Amino acid sequence: MLVVQKYGGSSVATPERVRAVAARVVRAVRRGDELVVVVSAMGDTTDDLVALAAEVVGDADAAVRHSREMDMLLTAGERISMALLAMAIREAGEGAVSLTGSQAAIITDGAHMSARIKEIRGDRVRAALEQGNVVIVAGFQGVSAAREITTLGRGGSDTTAVALAAALGADRCEVYSDVRGVYTADPRKVPEARIIPQVSFEELLELASAGAQVMHARAVEIAAKYDVDLRLGSAFDTGDDTIGTFVTRKPQRMEELVLTGVAAKSGQAKLVLNGLPAGLRTVTAVLVGLAEAGISVDMISESAGSEGRIELQLTLDDELVQEAGDLVSAMLPGMGGGGIVVRRGLSKIALIGSGMHRRAGVYARAYRSLLEKEIEVYAVSTSGITITVLVEEARQDDAVQALHEAFTLELIGEDPATGAAAGER
Amino acid sequence: MLVVQKYGGSSVATPERVRAVAARVVRAVRRGDELVVVVSAMGDTTDDLVALAAEVVGDADAAVRHSREMDMLLTAGERISMALLAMAIREAGEGAVSLTGSQAAIITDGAHMSARIKEIRGDRVRAALEQGNVVIVAGFQGVSAAREITTLGRGGSDTTAVALAAALGADRCEVYSDVRGVYTADPRKVPEARIIPQVSFEELLELASAGAQVMHARAVEIAAKYDVDLRLGSAFDTGDDTIGTFVTRKPQRMEELVLTGVAAKSGQAKLVLNGLPAGLRTVTAVLVGLAEAGISVDMISESAGSEGRIELQLTLDDELVQEAGDLVSAMLPGMGGGGIVVRRGLSKIALIGSGMHRRAGVYARAYRSLLEKEIEVYAVSTSGITITVLVEEARQDDAVQALHEAFTLELIGEDPATGAAAGER
Repeated sequence: MLVVQKYGGSSVATPERVRAVAARVVRAVRRGDELVVVVSAMGDTTDDLVALAAEVVGDADAAVRHSREMDMLLTAGERISMALLAMAIREAGEGAVSLTGSQAAIITDGAHMSARIKEIRGDRVRAALEQGNVVIVAGFQGVSAAREITTLGRGGSDTTAVALAAALGADRCEVYSDVRGVYTADPRKVPEARIIPQVSFEELLELASAGAQVMHARAVEIAAKYDVDLRLGSAFDTGDDTIGTFVTRKPQRMEELVLTGVAAKSGQAKLVLNGLPAGLRTVTAVLVGLAEAGISVDMISESAGSEGRIELQLTLDDELVQEAGDLVSAMLPGMGGGGIVVRRGLSKIALIGSGMHRRAGVYARAYRSLLEKEIEVYAVSTSGITITVLVEEARQDDAVQALHEAFTLELIGEDPATGAAAGER
Repeated sequence: MLVVQKYGGSSVATPERVRAVAARVVRAVRRGDELVVVVSAMGDTTDDLVALAAEVVGDADAAVRHSREMDMLLTAGERISMALLAMAIREAGEGAVSLTGSQAAIITDGAHMSARIKEIRGDRVRAALEQGNVVIVAGFQGVSAAREITTLGRGGSDTTAVALAAALGADRCEVYSDVRGVYTADPRKVPEARIIPQVSFEELLELASAGAQVMHARAVEIAAKYDVDLRLGSAFDTGDDTIGTFVTRKPQRMEELVLTGVAAKSGQAKLVLNGLPAGLRTVTAVLVGLAEAGISVDMISESAGSEGRIELQLTLDDELVQEAGDLVSAMLPGMGGGGIVVRRGLSKIALIGSGMHRRAGVYARAYRSLLEKEIEVYAVSTSGITITVLVEEARQDDAVQALHEAFTLELIGEDPATGAAAGER
């Protein structure tokens, strides 16, 4: 079986951790697997390099003014971790070679600090595998057609791993971090939270964009597009390699579940424009004005007010709401009047599950559970597999807890300690 | 004028130092020069990376067992310094791009940790220069025909700079370190020591191999072969850029000098084999035996003893003399007998100057100056431009001082403080 494994920065933060990862890799090799390993920079290396650049240029905007050189600088990080990991695997008695993004022919566009992968030519990786090596590939980095060094931006190493798995036709991509899998809710907040044993790409995407600490949405999109089976688990688990969350197009489940998880994201705000003149023109003008100022809007809802006027409600990041409010206020007179109400300090709670809409009363149950805890809902939005509500930040944890309880999410996860499904106990 | 400048690790050890080097580079650009800048890794970066590898593999032999991965690891060092320097130059308002050894097409053989440069294709460097950039090239590193990352071993960054200057047809290669030039003797030992304003390649080579803290002999050889004019100076001098030592094929001097410098190297030993059967066969057997054991011999002299027997005297590194002595002792019976005397704790003092042999009495003056200080000479050897003597380590500084005085070396240097030739005062 050809497996791509990815280890994040905390997994290789120290020489001891590098050796521990090497031991995991060697175990997989001795089980008979062919291994390609994607690594991030060790621990805080990237942050340290960014700080060094800030010292040299005198402020924190080195990446803005010198993105090409920033890429050159940051790519030093994976070079260090991958060379050390190759040494550790060789010390343990297996063949290993490390390859830079350039050597592994990870071809990107030329957008420094946020490049997109255009193509991966797997020849060199395959040749090194055929020679009996574990092939270690630098995460996060690539090379443009003009032979410029690039980095992939946020979620870069996950993206490298999944894209490599797709290009090589790997049987699976295993993404290891310091988290044991995808939880039904944040286990620091909800003690009953369980690891979700199987999840679909779509559910994982919703969880990722809703703020759950899982793989980066960008990497999940590639996995979904190229049908790369994923396994998300902890690099710190040394035992059973079947623990973790498996992500596939069609998860094998005992029954179609209502919800797979609850995720939360604080720092949200709401902007209500009331008494606007009705019509598509008004709404369009507001949205275009915000977009041109680079302000992303999250949820949108529109409702009829009195006297042919409408109310437009937008949610967005709290740190953008001041600018957005000022911008829209200035537009109101030209559009024919209207008022503004800003509500800050909100959290977004998402309930995710592909089976949600086959069950009756899901909305009702969600609202009832919040009502029982006297948690006010400031906005709501739904998709095929999610319900998203906005609540006060101070009630975020209560809301997650209430929803998790209401849908008895503990029934769908596994007990991390025993590996047994919680419902079997 | 096209100039290649090289800055060593101490010259770019901190963000402040990187900015100071950028200021120097920018000054040269604004004088109208085209600049290619070769940098080493910052300060102790290379040592830190070596220590990290030692931690991962559990001993200090990572470079021996994992030379390919060691090259991958160490090349991260220049990546960091060159990216930061490019940022600093850009901040100061001039164009700059950094290029890895691979991007600058520094093609080497495949010998990891000690690669030799085979070819430099200057196209990409030239193109970047033509676009108005300062081109910063990673020192010490290259790429093999098989696209493997290599490093050049000791003196690597100096070698990169000189080889680049040769390949680009640069007008000059300026090598900056924390030393202000080549001194007539070690200024910490000989207060009268002066910077040598001009020196030939051959003299610099002799000084380098005799232990003077100057450029690596390997880089000097390339400069001599391709006739690359050098300037050696300090990156910490901010003032007059004409200070330093200029190295050319034919130095312009007021008069042909007797000596240009005195250099010393401790840790030497002498091995005397007496009562050996005469004949080339005996000497050859000893030298072949040592060479096959990987023991390098420095000076050799042979003299007739009594009764058709000869005495063979060898000098070598003190740390090798025990092994050499044991080896030769074991050979003696088979060669027809003979004895061994070992003398350890010696220093080698070299007097260097291309004009030496045109002046009468140089040997006499050298010996007399040592005799006056009662410094015993344990061995002597000469070449066209050098006299080398072995003295006790305890007398090393006295010997350097005595020889420096005897040849009034202070007359040929410049006073670093005023830049005026010392003889003019």
